[in-house]
Amino acid sequence: MSKIYFDHSATTPVDKRVLDAMNPFFSEVFGNPSSIHGFGQKALRGVDKARKQVSNFLNCQDDELIFTSGATESNNLVLRGVIKYLEKSQGKKVGSGDCMDISKEDAEAIKRDNSWKNWFKKGDGENNFHIITSSIEHKSILEPCAELEKRGVDVTYLPVDSRGLINVDDVKGAIRDNTILVSVMYVNSEVGSVQPIREIGKVIKKINENRYKEWQKRGARKKEPKPQPVYFHTDATQAVNFSDCNIERLHLDFLSLSSHKIYGPKGVGALFVKNGSKIKGVQIGGGQERKIRSGTLNVPGIVGLGKAISLITPERRNENNKYLANLRDRLVDGLTEKISNIKLTSDREISTPSHAHFILRGAEGESILMSLDFEGIAISTGSACAAKDLHSSHVLKAMKISAEESNYAVRFTLGKKNTKEDIDKLLKVLPPIIERIRKMNPIYKK
Amino acid sequence: MSKIYFDHSATTPVDKRVLDAMNPFFSEVFGNPSSIHGFGQKALRGVDKARKQVSNFLNCQDDELIFTSGATESNNLVLRGVIKYLEKSQGKKVGSGDCMDISKEDAEAIKRDNSWKNWFKKGDGENNFHIITSSIEHKSILEPCAELEKRGVDVTYLPVDSRGLINVDDVKGAIRDNTILVSVMYVNSEVGSVQPIREIGKVIKKINENRYKEWQKRGARKKEPKPQPVYFHTDATQAVNFSDCNIERLHLDFLSLSSHKIYGPKGVGALFVKNGSKIKGVQIGGGQERKIRSGTLNVPGIVGLGKAISLITPERRNENNKYLANLRDRLVDGLTEKISNIKLTSDREISTPSHAHFILRGAEGESILMSLDFEGIAISTGSACAAKDLHSSHVLKAMKISAEESNYAVRFTLGKKNTKEDIDKLLKVLPPIIERIRKMNPIYKK
Repeated sequence: MSKIYFDHSATTPVDKRVLDAMNPFFSEVFGNPSSIHGFGQKALRGVDKARKQVSNFLNCQDDELIFTSGATESNNLVLRGVIKYLEKSQGKKVGSGDCMDISKEDAEAIKRDNSWKNWFKKGDGENNFHIITSSIEHKSILEPCAELEKRGVDVTYLPVDSRGLINVDDVKGAIRDNTILVSVMYVNSEVGSVQPIREIGKVIKKINENRYKEWQKRGARKKEPKPQPVYFHTDATQAVNFSDCNIERLHLDFLSLSSHKIYGPKGVGALFVKNGSKIKGVQIGGGQERKIRSGTLNVPGIVGLGKAISLITPERRNENNKYLANLRDRLVDGLTEKISNIKLTSDREISTPSHAHFILRGAEGESILMSLDFEGIAISTGSACAAKDLHSSHVLKAMKISAEESNYAVRFTLGKKNTKEDIDKLLKVLPPIIERIRKMNPIYKK
Repeated sequence: MSKIYFDHSATTPVDKRVLDAMNPFFSEVFGNPSSIHGFGQKALRGVDKARKQVSNFLNCQDDELIFTSGATESNNLVLRGVIKYLEKSQGKKVGSGDCMDISKEDAEAIKRDNSWKNWFKKGDGENNFHIITSSIEHKSILEPCAELEKRGVDVTYLPVDSRGLINVDDVKGAIRDNTILVSVMYVNSEVGSVQPIREIGKVIKKINENRYKEWQKRGARKKEPKPQPVYFHTDATQAVNFSDCNIERLHLDFLSLSSHKIYGPKGVGALFVKNGSKIKGVQIGGGQERKIRSGTLNVPGIVGLGKAISLITPERRNENNKYLANLRDRLVDGLTEKISNIKLTSDREISTPSHAHFILRGAEGESILMSLDFEGIAISTGSACAAKDLHSSHVLKAMKISAEESNYAVRFTLGKKNTKEDIDKLLKVLPPIIERIRKMNPIYKK
């Protein structure tokens, strides 16, 4: 039985061309890119090429990229790293010891950087740094946020509407004088909603520009330090395949991405760090990646990430998006026609073409998953990271979907190798499965 | 020109058998091991097999292993993670906010765990946790230690003798009532000295047993909480190829290792965490690896690590050690015979057979490295991680080697593919290189 994979948001197979690009870097070009000799320098050239491939894709500079072990690390790093720098520069007691063992020159540079000196006076009566994020972020954003809250950082969790979208005006309204970072995911992994990243970027840019003008008018003369901009970060893990990730057009300071969601290998990701942004390393001890991320570079992984991202040209992305949208429509229309009492959660207007998320009242998601698995079709009930977690989805909760309804959720996420035939097979096998499961559910009434 | 690689401590090529084992896990068995469906479960079986291979090697339980992105992460994790747990359980203010967003059950468990309740009273007048390490650890131990010091943790850095060995009695003497962790590297990456890990383990075990007996005699009756043991961690990154890593024989609570030093892929490592040890996750948000290390598992990397470690059987290790010792002796004896004013830093009696570290007075290490690279021979002046770092080695400094002499240091680290012919080529080309460099050095006198 040939297997069908509809769980591309959980992970994707490595593209043949990516694996071919990686292969020489395991046993032949195997040097440590920190080594000065030929073996090391050859490996470094592989890393450099990959860096260029990623920076081309994001439209950033090569030295604005930090390679990590994946998006979870990138997300942890941006939240902690920014706070770490600012606390250090402020000489704040809380968490200040969490800063890396910085060099003398670094310490001097931070001392000279007095943009935060008058920060307390300018705050809205609160002494803390403030972060804005959304209530539907990945756990690798939400858990570090919860940790930072315990350390005295204020966090605003923006609500979403019933389609899983945050409101740009809400972002604007939430920004305070002490806001240092807005972190909003680009595409939600569960329901596929695409957030208005560019519009949020514009709002933040405008606010930063106004603050700067204000400072030029008054503060500069009084020799007040330059105002600290509000940074803008997006977790683009689920967006790279489908959406524009040009950091200039989106007005981003930070962007997280992962290789294994874009037909690259697992265990590698990146964080875009706009030059001049204030961030300190979290994983320390060798000084790689501009001291922001220590540890021997994962050369084959990085080469794979570079190759994978280089395969996503704007043209191919458009084609792929059209292809997936067709498949998705076939799936959504087909299931909606054949199954009663089915609700599409992922609004087609504002979601990536890869996503189809449903509530199938009366049929538990896990039972559907198991039954389809038996037929050789892989789907999921939510994000893979939390698959073993029995708590209901925080994303659906934020979309005001009840805990009961969440039990009936299933997610289909399509990929470039899926075909019409795959969809037709699903349309054939799923309706009787749903009927059978519902029949066994004593409380389900049509 | 066929190239010769004498820098195996920096990194090793991936063994063909390892790459073969990894290959199916990129594009075929590509699922996310957190997924419940067949694709995920198949990938999970690959991870499970690798876990068994590593646990077999270390003689630990499968669930005592946390897969990480490498030894740097493992080392960062053990230091921060232990402190994080203990601070949390103590309700200490300093750094307590750094704890992960623990679940209700976790919080309850930590509350019930009162072993640290009376800890302050028992301390030697100091309020802080105390860590013992050595002055020649890798930066991924030393930098987190420096960070912890700033947060109020006391750290003792043990000295080493001229051969790069720490003294077991020094460890014993440094342990105080508030010591929570002793972290000593197994094999030094620069000079190859093998620390007396088993003997240190015995000392710590004895102290822990005595404390427990003491508590049984007096504390238990007074319903005092059980005493907290002193944990013992070793960074075994450079030892796995050469030394016994049986965690029971060594009496270890934690052990860090890296895949790319043992002919496995870069970007993956592990931390052994003895069951019952108190540690909290640092990279959070997904809950993988018993919540101690979040992020999608790097399946091919983990499979590669498992395969690589499974190739190191005790018999093969013994054979390989003998083979390398012969090559090393040929190298050391040859160079010592052919070059005047050469000092072997790595004492053959107490070092791994892979290491030959020299001071070649009057010939700068970097010039030697460059000249040999031109001949197609790769060596290093110290650890690759710090290769771009112009400061002189902290390891040599601890061994009381002057900064001037450190400039003349070179390291040869042999691997299983090196041959007699490789050594003979080196013995032929190096002496004239040294002569030439020394001639150009105006201050060098024979």
